[in-house]
Amino acid sequence: MSKQQKRYMLPEEEIPRYWYNIQADMANKPLPPLNPATKQPLKAEDLYPIFAKELSRQELDQTTTWVEIPEEVREMYKYYRSTPLVRAYALEKAIGTPAHIYFKNESVSPIGSHKLNSALAQAYYCKQEGITNITTETGAGQWGAALAYAAKVFGLEAAVYQVKISYEQKPYRRSIMQTFGAQVTASPSMSTRAGKDILTAHPNYQGSLGTAISEAVELAMQTPNCRYTLGSVLNHVALHQTIIGLEAEKQMELAGEYPDTIIACFGGGSNFGGLAFPFMRHKILEGKQIRFIAAEPASCPKLTRGKFEYDFGDEVGYTPLLPMYTLGHNFEPAHIHAGGLRYHGAGTIVSQLYKDGLMEAVDIQQLESFEAGCLFAQMEGIIPAPESCHAIAATIHEAKKCAETGEEKVILFNLSGHGLIDMASYDKYLAGDLTNYTLTDEEIQRNLDAVEAVL
Amino acid sequence: MSKQQKRYMLPEEEIPRYWYNIQADMANKPLPPLNPATKQPLKAEDLYPIFAKELSRQELDQTTTWVEIPEEVREMYKYYRSTPLVRAYALEKAIGTPAHIYFKNESVSPIGSHKLNSALAQAYYCKQEGITNITTETGAGQWGAALAYAAKVFGLEAAVYQVKISYEQKPYRRSIMQTFGAQVTASPSMSTRAGKDILTAHPNYQGSLGTAISEAVELAMQTPNCRYTLGSVLNHVALHQTIIGLEAEKQMELAGEYPDTIIACFGGGSNFGGLAFPFMRHKILEGKQIRFIAAEPASCPKLTRGKFEYDFGDEVGYTPLLPMYTLGHNFEPAHIHAGGLRYHGAGTIVSQLYKDGLMEAVDIQQLESFEAGCLFAQMEGIIPAPESCHAIAATIHEAKKCAETGEEKVILFNLSGHGLIDMASYDKYLAGDLTNYTLTDEEIQRNLDAVEAVL
Repeated sequence: MSKQQKRYMLPEEEIPRYWYNIQADMANKPLPPLNPATKQPLKAEDLYPIFAKELSRQELDQTTTWVEIPEEVREMYKYYRSTPLVRAYALEKAIGTPAHIYFKNESVSPIGSHKLNSALAQAYYCKQEGITNITTETGAGQWGAALAYAAKVFGLEAAVYQVKISYEQKPYRRSIMQTFGAQVTASPSMSTRAGKDILTAHPNYQGSLGTAISEAVELAMQTPNCRYTLGSVLNHVALHQTIIGLEAEKQMELAGEYPDTIIACFGGGSNFGGLAFPFMRHKILEGKQIRFIAAEPASCPKLTRGKFEYDFGDEVGYTPLLPMYTLGHNFEPAHIHAGGLRYHGAGTIVSQLYKDGLMEAVDIQQLESFEAGCLFAQMEGIIPAPESCHAIAATIHEAKKCAETGEEKVILFNLSGHGLIDMASYDKYLAGDLTNYTLTDEEIQRNLDAVEAVL
Repeated sequence: MSKQQKRYMLPEEEIPRYWYNIQADMANKPLPPLNPATKQPLKAEDLYPIFAKELSRQELDQTTTWVEIPEEVREMYKYYRSTPLVRAYALEKAIGTPAHIYFKNESVSPIGSHKLNSALAQAYYCKQEGITNITTETGAGQWGAALAYAAKVFGLEAAVYQVKISYEQKPYRRSIMQTFGAQVTASPSMSTRAGKDILTAHPNYQGSLGTAISEAVELAMQTPNCRYTLGSVLNHVALHQTIIGLEAEKQMELAGEYPDTIIACFGGGSNFGGLAFPFMRHKILEGKQIRFIAAEPASCPKLTRGKFEYDFGDEVGYTPLLPMYTLGHNFEPAHIHAGGLRYHGAGTIVSQLYKDGLMEAVDIQQLESFEAGCLFAQMEGIIPAPESCHAIAATIHEAKKCAETGEEKVILFNLSGHGLIDMASYDKYLAGDLTNYTLTDEEIQRNLDAVEAVL
């Protein structure tokens, strides 16, 4: 038998003590979020009614390069970190590539994905500031599960709006959140004005992250001592997730290699930024030649086919206006099984980096993503989340190119989570019941027209 | 916030190189398995038609204390081992106990349980001996998933008979096995004589591990180049699982403590023996004061209410006669959700140790097991397998006793696997739809009478 895998771990004392804030190193800083009423740049104070103060501050901080990880959060990180960096020999062999493929395995976190890295930080800061209740939305349910557990750790009450289609496709993610003690509501619901408005206008609407965000933000704004938390898109979320890339840097050093290509799936940008930003620092500061590839679903191609505009983060328009690549805040994504990638916009940092040509993006079709996921499962023994399958498909693309050129490139991708709660999706794929979704230019333009009306 | 958890890991070079064979150290060796026709003790050769030769040899080896782990198997262990040893501060606090609670977290293996430890070894030896196809049974599906992946690693074809009630209660374990490329059949099936006989006599029979074993053994015996593999009960399975306890010994040393009480759930004995035997060595050889507690379900109480007798390992009577605590090979267990604990007999090593008073056993009711599992999930962030919930419940019992006496006992239990594929069971528990099962003495005696007729 040839070598199947090799795992690299960090000793506890090597777990990073600081998160990395890429904003401080960017030549072109992200444009500021705007108050939708006045169109004026927002200050941190303007965000306090929605987010914890420290998170609001982190969101807009464009000068502090290294942000200290609070000791209580780092203590919790030590429970499941470092996550393994794995050389995927078996996958390389199956593809027949000379490329060296590594993956960072975030699926080993107790809740099964990278989402816990930021959930713990957000719950911690809320607790510190005397907040008692937190609310959020969740698509695939990975974020909701992470937040439900993080809330429990810090003694907070959590209320989660789960996108209805995911609530139905993945009922067990709801069960997990409930087991952790969270209150879970399918979105759109009749419990908020935002939900009611949508359900009366579109009675069978299956929900979107944008709508669920509206509901959660509304609840936070109307409830004393309650704040909203978000699992992706925002700068402070990507900040917390940089623990992934910071560890991976040290682990690649243990492996004696350096990545030529870094790949992650792309929903709002949290697992992508988490892995990519610490490496991109060396591209920005030292001109290091590294390619960064965001793998998004073909059915929600905000980077490859969206437009860079100020747009709302949610369906209803409760959030600030964010400068981002967007398909329009009222974009209704197809019901693909990678629920975590069904979001209309890209985070503002990634949007700026993409605009500046520091990274690339590729679109992956649903069937190709599952095909890649099944191959990975058989080779590496881990059922990947449907979201992560997009990163695997993009990795296989790049590895096959190396097979043609004979280049021994080093590819590193993020296994953002496992797919054990997504077996119904795998069942459908294996039974031949899944399809691809391709948007026409017209469909995309229709939504983009609506975006241009925002500013 | 008080401390929540503390994790202890071993560096790669500390992963054990030998499995521990407790048979060599036992004063009273397990009695030999008997040929059911001649009632004569079996030799290793007699097992060759069913098992790989090396596994047959390991099964009967009562003299070799340390068995070298083949390099290819150890390479695979390094992919996911050491598994963490965790001090569960949060759980201690929730119980209000002065006890120190540790758990060995086997749920982080790629397939989610300890079962992979033996699946890899068994698939390896089969491959070495030129076997091309392997077959097995699975209850909860943890073993089947492990074997499916292990078969893939070593390039073997796997056919799995899954107990029908589990096939229906946990359809996604079937999907996982299929994603790994295994062929899965609900048992009893009409594809074997054993299955046909049972289904014609009992048309709606929901299956048992005993029946599924009969089907898998039959397939192995009737197919050239095909061998049977088993996920528990047998001595060689417990041998491979001692990697758990051997690691835990070193990790407890890192923690600066030594366990007073060691607890594991009990189906056939593989996760129990795996954790317990390396520690029991010190009880046997040095008289070290350690309590060992096997936590079995009240609905399948082979240790606490069964009888020590020679009995078949399967329903039909294909296997050798094994000297064990049994409820009778035709015992039909209640449909509890801890599918992995629904087996009529205890492995021969554990049976002898229990008979000799070296260990204890407790019965846990289904509702108590899920209550314990939910508390653990909220405190430690991991949804435990319904099987593992029994170990947690027994741990909570012991920890509560310490709360009464004020003793700072050190309790170590095995988290044999996660319950992410068992969320339907948690759903039912949370909805109040689960019940306890208590067997009357009459029900137990009826089956035991049948056992006595065996010899």
